[in-house]
Amino acid sequence: MAFVPVTYYPPVMQEQLRNARAAVEGSPYERYLNVDLTVPLEVARGIQDGPLPLSDTISPTVEELNAMLTDPVRRDWGWSVLEGPTLYVQSRIDFPGSTPEMFEWWFWWHTLDPRRYMLWFPHSHVSATPADPKRMADDSLTFAERFYGNRHHVKEWMGPEFLDSIINFTDPAVLGFDMGKFSAAGFAASASGLLELPGVPDVTVGMMIHIVRPVEGGMELVSRYWLGSHPALRRFPGAEKACELFASVGIDAEKMRNTAYELSVHDMTEWNNLARILPGLYAEFGPKPG
Amino acid sequence: MAFVPVTYYPPVMQEQLRNARAAVEGSPYERYLNVDLTVPLEVARGIQDGPLPLSDTISPTVEELNAMLTDPVRRDWGWSVLEGPTLYVQSRIDFPGSTPEMFEWWFWWHTLDPRRYMLWFPHSHVSATPADPKRMADDSLTFAERFYGNRHHVKEWMGPEFLDSIINFTDPAVLGFDMGKFSAAGFAASASGLLELPGVPDVTVGMMIHIVRPVEGGMELVSRYWLGSHPALRRFPGAEKACELFASVGIDAEKMRNTAYELSVHDMTEWNNLARILPGLYAEFGPKPG
Repeated sequence: MAFVPVTYYPPVMQEQLRNARAAVEGSPYERYLNVDLTVPLEVARGIQDGPLPLSDTISPTVEELNAMLTDPVRRDWGWSVLEGPTLYVQSRIDFPGSTPEMFEWWFWWHTLDPRRYMLWFPHSHVSATPADPKRMADDSLTFAERFYGNRHHVKEWMGPEFLDSIINFTDPAVLGFDMGKFSAAGFAASASGLLELPGVPDVTVGMMIHIVRPVEGGMELVSRYWLGSHPALRRFPGAEKACELFASVGIDAEKMRNTAYELSVHDMTEWNNLARILPGLYAEFGPKPG
Repeated sequence: MAFVPVTYYPPVMQEQLRNARAAVEGSPYERYLNVDLTVPLEVARGIQDGPLPLSDTISPTVEELNAMLTDPVRRDWGWSVLEGPTLYVQSRIDFPGSTPEMFEWWFWWHTLDPRRYMLWFPHSHVSATPADPKRMADDSLTFAERFYGNRHHVKEWMGPEFLDSIINFTDPAVLGFDMGKFSAAGFAASASGLLELPGVPDVTVGMMIHIVRPVEGGMELVSRYWLGSHPALRRFPGAEKACELFASVGIDAEKMRNTAYELSVHDMTEWNNLARILPGLYAEFGPKPG
């Protein structure tokens, strides 16, 4: 797949890049800070062709979550607005030379220093802070023990808008995955969870799926995002209040359409960049054998 | 110079592209509608590096207008916010195979059918309507006679925002150019003018310079934009009211910073696309010899 340079960053993201460069300067992270990011041309063009038809999207029901483990979508990219209204994004990203172990490592490791989080998307990422950093840093715990239910407070630029959100990473079984099917399909790690807004605890405003499996030459990441008042999200805490909450901050279907495209651009940019730096980061900063 | 695909169009521009495709379908203009636009990588990256330092910009004074004819700027691209506040953009674009005659022809010809205007930037351009289309179409008049003072009402997408503006194309001598110096520097045509807002006649809110000269293998276009309340614009009608007008519609320095970058992206995209299609359009639709 051909990769091409990103031709657009709004001024606030240009400024965040300068902040990130200053933050990592002289640190061991500096050489992993990519300034000239590239994205797959096929995906950049694909998401420029309007919203996906609803027949090419999936709902956050338990049934469709499990179907996604075995039934590939027609396209590895795309965005739309579903009932609710609910912002929807889908993607599949290749990670040559990476493994699910590296993926789990990245997800707790990057939360312990904002400079690490910046490496992931230097034009966007400001900070990702865990509710309990001590638990997150505890090497005696399993990934699930340190990570799930340890809410991340995430600050990042989503295009021209500043996004301040809470990600409650959650056991995939609790989200609705049949873990027998999950493993049978080869998936080996998950950094999926429920979304909340800061200061509004226990109101689920969305669900985000990031699951990985080994493929020839590396790993693939399959992602889905639903943000809004989809009826199928009502199985999660407080989700029945999401519609009112979105209305109170002026988020309507038109706003969701724009944000869905921005999130597609963001997803394409950040994950393809992480794919480039993860093997090197893990080799330098990951656990040493023996 | 390496050209790369544009990786970002907000959903409203994606929709405008669909409108433009539908508008030209089956017409003789269809084959000139480029969908996959490309831009010079050096410029796309250059304008991602924040605003130009003020020492790299020029003011819309008579002195600096004339200095730009002979003193090249340090960079052929860039944006900033000057005193006023005043949005500022500069650019220089190569037009291989084009001539100043083609440039003048394009500027009256495209206003007689919105489909022609769409070809210029299919993701953005909606319509450009002259106040007096009959005068604009009159082949017995010179370019200056049909074009100057024949206000264009322009509707286009500038990133996610719809821009509805009036361009009062004006004799470059009236704008402040010394026409002896203009010709001596090789410049041979101008599509420059003053900017107004619809419904607010005779309040100058900006000045736009587009001047061309032959170079080896074609033509070069040198452009400058000032939009705002710069003191040097006060030599033009009603410009002293611009500051109040911008304040009344909520445009401040922060908004100007974003719009300056958007205008840089827009300028880079539309002119490089016109450069690609102008020789072919002129050969097919321009005046026939004899």
